Amino acid sequence: MLNASPDIRQQLFDTAALRPKGAARHSPVQGIVLTNGDIDHVAGLLSLRERQPFGVFATPATLKLIEANSIFRVLDRACVAMKALQHGQTIEPGFGLRLTPFFVPGKVPLHEETGAVEIGAETEATLGLEIEAGGARFVYIPGCARISEEVRERVGGADLLLFDGTTYTDDEMVRLGLSQKTAWRMGHMAISGEDGSLAAFNGIDVGRRVYTHINNTNPILIEGSRERRSVEQAGWDVAYDGMEIVL
Amino acid sequence: MLNASPDIRQQLFDTAALRPKGAARHSPVQGIVLTNGDIDHVAGLLSLRERQPFGVFATPATLKLIEANSIFRVLDRACVAMKALQHGQTIEPGFGLRLTPFFVPGKVPLHEETGAVEIGAETEATLGLEIEAGGARFVYIPGCARISEEVRERVGGADLLLFDGTTYTDDEMVRLGLSQKTAWRMGHMAISGEDGSLAAFNGIDVGRRVYTHINNTNPILIEGSRERRSVEQAGWDVAYDGMEIVL
Repeated sequence: MLNASPDIRQQLFDTAALRPKGAARHSPVQGIVLTNGDIDHVAGLLSLRERQPFGVFATPATLKLIEANSIFRVLDRACVAMKALQHGQTIEPGFGLRLTPFFVPGKVPLHEETGAVEIGAETEATLGLEIEAGGARFVYIPGCARISEEVRERVGGADLLLFDGTTYTDDEMVRLGLSQKTAWRMGHMAISGEDGSLAAFNGIDVGRRVYTHINNTNPILIEGSRERRSVEQAGWDVAYDGMEIVL
Repeated sequence: MLNASPDIRQQLFDTAALRPKGAARHSPVQGIVLTNGDIDHVAGLLSLRERQPFGVFATPATLKLIEANSIFRVLDRACVAMKALQHGQTIEPGFGLRLTPFFVPGKVPLHEETGAVEIGAETEATLGLEIEAGGARFVYIPGCARISEEVRERVGGADLLLFDGTTYTDDEMVRLGLSQKTAWRMGHMAISGEDGSLAAFNGIDVGRRVYTHINNTNPILIEGSRERRSVEQAGWDVAYDGMEIVL
């Protein structure tokens, strides 16, 4: 989604680059960063088993989960390198990118929950990413239970923020009868309200702010809705499939 | 795929039945039978986590694999019942269906392979299904390494056979440079050749015969190809997405 320079754009992100090139079954995916271990973040790995080399970057806790689930052995370790990320340690995965992972308030993946679940701790379970290339800086936080001091500092001054837009209101899935869980219980902060992300990022200096990871119950997906207008009026965009952003 | 009677068709299989009905996020899927534990047979479970009740039917070996992989805990056991299938034991899962699983020659799933792998053993790893409803009998065998005596007997006299059409020739993926494995090594028998399924089922009495589980290297997918004509001339159909069969 980040097009930091024409070169990177050419290599990684434009439509033509998404078609197979060279060998049959070629994929342009050369690296994957897992920001947590939930199904919507890890299940896609099961579709990447065509023996093309790529790297999987994640915290030791998330890599342990991948190792513990035998079905991920379909990723042949002769082709797929598992690489550990550490809080605050910058890596250079290639393509001129610098990537700095940092813990954000979250929770363990649903399938690893046992007994009482702590929500909002800053642990290896949930990452934000600071990505720099060609002089631009982008912060990616698809899941976040609350705005920590570190989140505020990393986001400040970024050229682009992609942030957790799971729900508009904390109890939206409960009210619709779809779940007994609030957004907070799932490790997400709602957009609206006193404790919501709209208020929390108000006044923070960011070049462009975009909601992503949007649940299908979130009314910001409906163009012209009151909720959509409220985020647009606050300067936010709503991400969509195939969105391209050039910095 | 099987429309055994207008009633069942109405309940389960026509296009309208595939749209959500009643509650939001309703799915018409009320039961799933796993014929083996490979990714293409089990990963779909990860998309069925909307807390709607359904049953998962599989051999103890395949259920053990599901239990051992923690990511399948997203299927809340309060909603999803895991039910063991035994070789040759008929169950009645509802909708007027009678279902009899039977071992077919196969192999353990790729992700469970360790050391030397035995191909073609008749074990809990790979199932065929005999499904009866409304007086019709359908045999479903999406993976099969060779035609055993039991396969031949179950298939004989069936109104419909859906059979493993993974590859046309045993070495097709090797020749294309896509894999170092033959179809046999992956637990499948090729369609063509002396040991192929086309020859093996020649002369067996079946109402309708359809190749399914077709790999994207298989030239029977190309309309008008020599290979497509060879299976059509032998009385086989080639399955396609959305295919409906009324018996």
